[in-house]
Parts: sequence; structure tokens; C-alpha cells
Amino acid sequence: MKITDMRVHSIAIADPPLRSSYGLHAPYALRTILELESDDGIVGIAETYGGERPARALLDLRPRVLGADPYRLTGLLLPLMDGEGCGPARSQTHLVPGENPLDAATRTYAAIEAACLDLIGKSAGRPVCDLLGGRVREAVPFSAYAFYKHAGGGGEGDDARDDEYGEVLTPEAMVREVKQMIARYGFGSIKLKGGVLDPDIEIETMRQLRAEFGPDVPLRIDPNSAWTVDTSVRVGKALAAELSSGGYLEDPTAGLENMSAVRKQLLAAGLDIPLASNVAVTSFADLPRAIALDAVQIVLSDHHYWGGMRQVQHLARLCKTFDLGLSMHSNSHLGVSLMAMAHGAAATPHLTYACDTHYPWQSSEDEVVAGGRIPIVGGYVRIPERPGLGVELDYDQLARGRERYAKCPYRRRDDEAEMRKHVDPNWKRILPRW
Amino acid sequence: MKITDMRVHSIAIADPPLRSSYGLHAPYALRTILELESDDGIVGIAETYGGERPARALLDLRPRVLGADPYRLTGLLLPLMDGEGCGPARSQTHLVPGENPLDAATRTYAAIEAACLDLIGKSAGRPVCDLLGGRVREAVPFSAYAFYKHAGGGGEGDDARDDEYGEVLTPEAMVREVKQMIARYGFGSIKLKGGVLDPDIEIETMRQLRAEFGPDVPLRIDPNSAWTVDTSVRVGKALAAELSSGGYLEDPTAGLENMSAVRKQLLAAGLDIPLASNVAVTSFADLPRAIALDAVQIVLSDHHYWGGMRQVQHLARLCKTFDLGLSMHSNSHLGVSLMAMAHGAAATPHLTYACDTHYPWQSSEDEVVAGGRIPIVGGYVRIPERPGLGVELDYDQLARGRERYAKCPYRRRDDEAEMRKHVDPNWKRILPRW
Repeated sequence: MKITDMRVHSIAIADPPLRSSYGLHAPYALRTILELESDDGIVGIAETYGGERPARALLDLRPRVLGADPYRLTGLLLPLMDGEGCGPARSQTHLVPGENPLDAATRTYAAIEAACLDLIGKSAGRPVCDLLGGRVREAVPFSAYAFYKHAGGGGEGDDARDDEYGEVLTPEAMVREVKQMIARYGFGSIKLKGGVLDPDIEIETMRQLRAEFGPDVPLRIDPNSAWTVDTSVRVGKALAAELSSGGYLEDPTAGLENMSAVRKQLLAAGLDIPLASNVAVTSFADLPRAIALDAVQIVLSDHHYWGGMRQVQHLARLCKTFDLGLSMHSNSHLGVSLMAMAHGAAATPHLTYACDTHYPWQSSEDEVVAGGRIPIVGGYVRIPERPGLGVELDYDQLARGRERYAKCPYRRRDDEAEMRKHVDPNWKRILPRW
Repeated sequence: MKITDMRVHSIAIADPPLRSSYGLHAPYALRTILELESDDGIVGIAETYGGERPARALLDLRPRVLGADPYRLTGLLLPLMDGEGCGPARSQTHLVPGENPLDAATRTYAAIEAACLDLIGKSAGRPVCDLLGGRVREAVPFSAYAFYKHAGGGGEGDDARDDEYGEVLTPEAMVREVKQMIARYGFGSIKLKGGVLDPDIEIETMRQLRAEFGPDVPLRIDPNSAWTVDTSVRVGKALAAELSSGGYLEDPTAGLENMSAVRKQLLAAGLDIPLASNVAVTSFADLPRAIALDAVQIVLSDHHYWGGMRQVQHLARLCKTFDLGLSMHSNSHLGVSLMAMAHGAAATPHLTYACDTHYPWQSSEDEVVAGGRIPIVGGYVRIPERPGLGVELDYDQLARGRERYAKCPYRRRDDEAEMRKHVDPNWKRILPRW
């Protein structure tokens, strides 16, 4: 089996005006769909970050991909994982994950791996998770990813999507949002994207969520490094009950030293609230210091930038070895990414928390998976009895995504620019803000 | 595809009277050959430690293996890796690796994994290394594994093997042994099994090896914990030149604290001689303290007891993350194990040293691989263009191995008993001896 064609599709998908400490989501998120076709006509697919650079990075590999055996290509390209030409991947604080220049190579590698695994699975008649050592779970738990947001469902003009959740800028509106989301998808845990409103309002939001859903629904809050050490400790203490029993405090503050200081002060107060991270720790190279400083107790994996599903399995074993938990990070994505996340998670024994997903924020109008959106039932995505990732592309939908991309005025994600355009012309991302 | 039969063959293979700090190799080493047959008549094979307990452990899993899909079985059995019923695997100092009760479950798991991968590879028409993410090398380097030994080629009576190397109990004889071995197999590095003679004789042996083979052939010495911290440091200083340029000092002393002390004292003397281990560190659970103490700079992996080839890949990524080297341990084995070691190593990018192998010490009379012994050329084992591990069983040879096993009076490896029987009736393994 040889790869005879490689197709890279840049698409745009409607995204609601979600808020975070990075700023505001634009009306469209950018994604890239990769197709690898073999000489026997089978097509393996993957989804990754969008815009110009991810697409170009994939196309730059075309000469190494065409003619390669998908069973061997991931081995041939492994030097990318270790920073061929650019040094090993590292974390950074200021850019959104898909825009981190320090892990561009591992993101490219991951997309190729996912498409190869899908191609191999479709060729061998096997689901991807079973190519990775065999599933350890038949269904993968996800959590309700709750955002403060402005009114609007994403998209623009005639292409605007329904606004299912309305404006959500108060604790009460957030409880309503999460109730709707859980009613629809059945999630058994909740993650609040914080770092948006005054910490006292976010504390109150978490308290109302706990009051509404009770102690059996674990809660997490993620202000994306928006707080000082003092504020992080203050919030941790205020939410000691809410963040216990399976919850966590995610990236409250920027940098490993500050994370470590928060951990120490919470422990000194008798509070063993684990700190999770997908900002301070986003690569293997970040782990030794994070562990030495006890800065992070839970790593949020993401095959899209850790270098693929096999690297996430390596990461999981490393986390288990060092008594760290493992959860999963997400960015705005469609069903191809969701299935890759689910297959990777299904084959990763040490996954100790439900995964994040932005999937509820996307719409059926934008889904490129044939047959429409992937069901999330009872909070779980079930591994289907189909080969590969278990999904095929709807080429009409893909064409619509490409048209939307062509019309889109931007070629990379810039949540700060969106804030200035729609909320405050002088807005800047300030870290720490509180 | 379902597994419809599981066959476990206990065999004995001739083994020469090799010496180590554990004692003396018996005339026969014990091995277990595992066969998993699928409903389409394909047979996957694996080789592991021998004697009663490994065979029984495999047979105990029969109810979970029969009827299982080989693509999923390794996922279903993963709880074994994490100590289902017995706690996570740990290292110990006194017993030979295959007799460590603390990693029995991971050894069992590894044998099942290897046979499943062979079965999958033969079913899909793919070499095992390409099921593991794709080869990163087409051929795997091994080192000359030099032992002090008594006269004899292994086996007994009519079944005695040719004694290719004769008695080797002096530096001069060792140089001759290694010259013969390199002439035959082309190895590009040398490992001396030490801990047998007075350290000054072993130092002299290493010096004569360096004088004979020059600085381009890296040297290692492994006394299997026979030395005190002081002796270890003394030997390290005496062999500073010999152990530099790609060599290492392996398990000079027992326990992580002592290893750490040796490392510190050598560094204080300006000598950055890396310490390797397959005694102090033989499982993931040993790694956090080993790393914290800087007790080990190179881990000797071994899919047979680390839990299989995928776990060795996890280990390799962990080692790279913490700036540790990775090499590979061996025990007396036949061609099935050699090919599993080669496939695992071929798919493990961070393999920073040539692998150990006892293979030159075994004989064609004992090989159970159809077509006879695997070639080692220029010190390398080449990954063949055949599916699975690339080897099939010779059932006549297997039957001979079973007959030998039936005649063998012992059911586990006991090098101390052999020393008492053949060398010194009062011999005991004393740690440290020097």
C-alpha cells in the first residue's frame, strides 16, 4: 500500500462569540482537513488547526508523503516529533494552542499520523483504537465545556447560526447554559472557561453550578493564566468544596513557578486541589521541570499538538509513572477531530478525567462528516463498529467549508482582535488581569 | 478474527557455563514458546522466560485469551500491566530478571502482546515494527556480550554442544573470546559481564579489550551489583578512558542510593561516566526515584519484563524526556525473542545504544525458528521483508526442546545452585562481594 495523493482542505466553520482570557472567538473558526489516498483507493482523513500555516506545513511534507507506505510513514517522519529543523516542542503562554510556533512540527506530525491510522484502519477493517494496542473503554467520557458568551450562534449575515444558548455573562445565565447542554448531551462533569469576568463573579458562578448539579458532577475552572498567584490561591480556597471530588483548577496563573507557588500555598492551607494544565505544560520538554516543581498534577493531553495518539499514550504512561492525572484539551473542532480524540482516549488506559470538547458549540451546518454530527449520549462518544476513525467525509459539506474559508478575511485565530472589534476597541490581553 | 487456540511450550536449550555475579549458567536454560492461533488458521508466536511459573501464568489467562480478538486482547489485558491482583511491577536485586516475582504480570502480558502482534502482522501482511508506528531503522545494532566462562559449550552428555570459546577466565582469554565473536558476528560494541573475578582483573580485561579493539568500539562493564560504592568509584576512575566515548558502567552496585553515590563521586572527580541499569530500575515504578537521585543515566529496556514492545516505546519517550539513554537487556534466548527485540527496537526512535543479546551463546541445535538461526551481520539484525515477527516455528525442533525440558531436573533458573554444584560447594551470592 502506497500513498498516491494528499489533499489539504482549509475550511471555516461557524463559531459562537465565546469568551476566554485570550479574548473573543471570531464568527468563524479555521480548520484543516487532510486526506491521504492510497493506491487501492482508500482515503484516510484527519482534522487539525486551520489557517495558512498548518495547511502549508502539511503541503511542505508532500514529497515525503507521496509514495510512502502509511504503515511506515509515521516512523519515517518521527524526526518531526523531536524538532527536526526547529528544536523540540515547548509551551508558551500568550498565543492560543494552535498558534504556538514552538509545536508546529508536532501538530503537523499528528495530522499525518491520524490520517495514516485512519487509512490503515480502513484498509485492515479495524477501528483506530484497536491499532493502538486495543481499546480499554468502549465509550469515552466528555465534559460540558461551559463558556461565558455574547449573544449569537456563530457565522455571519445569511450564514448566521441559531443562538441556542443566548448571551451568558452572569452566574444565572451560566447555570441555564449548562442545564441546556447537559439536557442535550448528558455530560457528567462541567468545565467552566474562566478568566473572563471578575473572579468573584466566577466564584459565584461555580457555586451556583454546584448548587444546581450537586457534588456528583465534578467541576473544573480554567481562567487560562488570567490570575496572579494570590488570586489563584484565593479562588482555590473559596472553591475548595466545588473543586474537590474529581474537579480541578486549570492554569490559574502563568508559568511553572507561579503554578508551583499556588500549589504550595493551597497545600499549606490543607487543600489538595489538583492543578491541571494545557498552557504551562504542552510538550514533553516541559514535563521535567513541571514535575520537579510539583507545578502541575494533571496534564491535559491533546493529540493535535502533543504529536499524535501514540505520543498521548506515551504521555499517559509517563503521567501514571509520576502520579499525575491525565485529561484532554480541546479547541473548536468538527467530527473528524472528535473521533480521533475518542479513539486515542479509548486506547489510553491512564485517562483519569472526562475529556474536554468544544463540539457542542459547532453546528450541523458545518459538519463535514458524512451522515452529520457525531452523537454524544450520556456524555459519552461511543467507538463505532466501523474501520478507521469510523467516519467518512461529506464532500459537499467540505466544499461549503472551503467556500466559507475563501470568504473569511482572516487566516489565523486572533481572539484579541475580535475583542477590539466587537467589545472594546482598546482591549488587550493582560496577564495577570486579576 | 478470534483466537481459537493457545499453546504453551516449555522448552530447554543448551547454555554454556557462563559466569556472572548471580553464579553460573546451568547446562540448559529454560524458555517458553507461546502460540496463539486464530480462527483463520494463522499462528502468532512469542518467546519468554521458562520454567513452571511463566508457563502456568500464561495458561491461567487461557479463559481470557480464547475467543478474544488479537487486536483488542492487549487492551483487555492492560490491567495486568498495572498490577492486577499483585500491585505494580518493581525491581529487586537478588533474583535473576526472569525470576523476579514483582514483575510476573508484566512478563505474562508481554508474551501475549508479542504473540498478538505477530498474529496481527501475519494477518495483515505487515512486519511487527510497522504495527508499532513504523520502523525508524531497517536494522538493529547489537553488542558483543562477553562472559567469563568455564570450559564447555552447554548441554550435557550426548547432547553437549561444541565449545566454541573454551575456558575464559583471564583477560587474555577474554580478548580471544571477543575477537572470535566479533569475527563471526561483526559487533561494533562490547559488553563485558563482570562481577566474576577480582575487580583488578576485570579492569585489566577492559584495558586489554580497549587495546585490542581501539576507541571506536564502545565498551560496557556490568558486574550486576557486585561492588561497593567505593569499588565502583575506583573501577570507574580506573576505566575512565575505556568507559567514555559511548560506553557505560552498568549496575556497579546495589540500590538506587548507592548508584546515586557512585554517580556523585564520579562527577565530583570530573568523570561523566553514565550508569546504566537493569537491576536497580526494571519497571516504571522505579523511575521517579531513580531520576530524582540521578542514580541511573541509561535504562536497559527489555520488552520481556517491561510489559511488551509498546511499553518499551513508552519507556523510550520517558527516557528521552528526562535526558536518559536507552539500551536493551537480554537473557539466554532463541530467535523468536531476538526478532521481537529487533522489531521493538526498530520502532523505538530513542534507542541510544546497541542492544544486548545472548544469542551468540545459543546453538543451531536448539533453535526453534524454521530455517535455523537468525543472521547477525556486521553486528546488526535486519528486519526481514516478512509479516509479523518474520519467523515461523520448526515444530520438530520445538518437540526436541520439549523433550529436553522433560529431562531437565530443574524448573527455574538457579545460578547459585549451579555454582555450588560445579565450582564451590559453599558458594553464595554475596552483595557486595568486592
